[in-house]
Amino acid sequence: MREPIGSQKSHGGSQKLPIGTCAIIGVGMMGGSLGMALKAEGLAERIVGIDRSETTLDAALASGAIDSGTTDPIVGAAEADCIVLAVPVDVLPALLERIRPHVRPDTLVTDIGSVKSRIVETGARLFGVQFVGGHPMAGSERSGIAAARADLFRGAAWAIVTENVNAAPDNSAPDNTFVARLTALVSALGAIPIRMNAADHDRIAALVSHLPHLLSFAYADTIAADPESELVLRMAGGSFRDLMRVSDADPALWQAIFHENKEWLRAALTAYETHLRNLRETLEAGQ
Amino acid sequence: MREPIGSQKSHGGSQKLPIGTCAIIGVGMMGGSLGMALKAEGLAERIVGIDRSETTLDAALASGAIDSGTTDPIVGAAEADCIVLAVPVDVLPALLERIRPHVRPDTLVTDIGSVKSRIVETGARLFGVQFVGGHPMAGSERSGIAAARADLFRGAAWAIVTENVNAAPDNSAPDNTFVARLTALVSALGAIPIRMNAADHDRIAALVSHLPHLLSFAYADTIAADPESELVLRMAGGSFRDLMRVSDADPALWQAIFHENKEWLRAALTAYETHLRNLRETLEAGQ
Repeated sequence: MREPIGSQKSHGGSQKLPIGTCAIIGVGMMGGSLGMALKAEGLAERIVGIDRSETTLDAALASGAIDSGTTDPIVGAAEADCIVLAVPVDVLPALLERIRPHVRPDTLVTDIGSVKSRIVETGARLFGVQFVGGHPMAGSERSGIAAARADLFRGAAWAIVTENVNAAPDNSAPDNTFVARLTALVSALGAIPIRMNAADHDRIAALVSHLPHLLSFAYADTIAADPESELVLRMAGGSFRDLMRVSDADPALWQAIFHENKEWLRAALTAYETHLRNLRETLEAGQ
Repeated sequence: MREPIGSQKSHGGSQKLPIGTCAIIGVGMMGGSLGMALKAEGLAERIVGIDRSETTLDAALASGAIDSGTTDPIVGAAEADCIVLAVPVDVLPALLERIRPHVRPDTLVTDIGSVKSRIVETGARLFGVQFVGGHPMAGSERSGIAAARADLFRGAAWAIVTENVNAAPDNSAPDNTFVARLTALVSALGAIPIRMNAADHDRIAALVSHLPHLLSFAYADTIAADPESELVLRMAGGSFRDLMRVSDADPALWQAIFHENKEWLRAALTAYETHLRNLRETLEAGQ
């Protein structure tokens, strides 16, 4: 087995490197963390970062999240053995269209977008089985490459999303080679791969991630509107901080996620409002 | 200045001991943490724990939260230079009534209850200026002496509640000796004393503590009612955990707090629902 270039001074043998060149499109907090994690675990020979911003690429190079950077997704995609799209959900499908003609037939194409239905549909149409959707259930209220960290995905669930899961609910159908490659990669990152279809993913993501963010944004709005918000902030304890934390997240990013998952988020919110109303009625009844 | 008994093997000189004997009534997570904190900072010569449960007193003695224990609040109160009531808000006023005839005239009487109006009113009626309400904005989703910790109050806001604050909104009126003693004690514990009247306290506590707990309970109910709650839990990430944490709190304790602060909690919830509805309308409008 050929030793990868530079393996002496970096990490284990080539059996620990399932990927040759990995292209990460969008080197923000999530994409940057993925680059760092891949390098920390010795899972890629080379990481090419692709981003609109030269400043971001410089910062990603300096932090060691990527080995080289380019602003051209076509150049980056053409040389990759694995492409991970880590851009906001609203621009992701168009980017899949754009790179399509330049991707090699054996390249694994995946993404880490928070809402999967439209992305998996677009990916399957353009790439067939070569595209496998993904969504690590890890994040931060911070955004940008400066907030990236190598251990972000450790212990986190990572949804692996294809429509084929429906066909074999008992998981008896063998994974195709691309699903198997992504599953192995996710496990090697210390995350927990969970296979599901896009509708199940989007319904559950609405409940466990999008709804908590919406509730946190509404709470931050409530606090900000209070006439004594300064005294309120001085009196804040643990339950306040818990509920406020994710409201620091980038509103534009979350607006796009909420919009993309509008139907399931509406359903989750309606369920929540029912339970909140029940508690309110118990309160009013003086129980 | 007389050196306190045992000061050689414990902590600093007597100037670090503003309290002789401190009685803590209710040695649960909060009362136990207070005992540990007073001892860690060398702020009391002796701590008497008072609790209905012998088992709790044994555990508190073993963990070093108290120096002696009794199940009789009258015995404990009679010998104390400072009495801290750390029992649930619904039983607190009756306990003030019960100890009243046995409390010495120079004893500081305070409490750490989460809702202050009825407690401060009862305390003022029974004890006059000798009673000063308090509320540390610190806690845990865990309860009981096993969850107590000496550093619970470090850095936390600690409301010091009397109705007199109203009379001097510019804080120009000198504190009476009991307010001054509690303020010094709270500061010595590493907490941040904030003086306010009971209505302001209860309104703000509803917003920063009781509402977050109510929202968390409603979220836990929503998750528990989901037909796929097992998969939902496997997919949980940070925002889910943040919102769920305090729902592990003792429901009986919080039912009593919600009931005691019903009016202000209703107002906080109504404000919250308005902001949540605004976000929902933005979502529905597709923005």
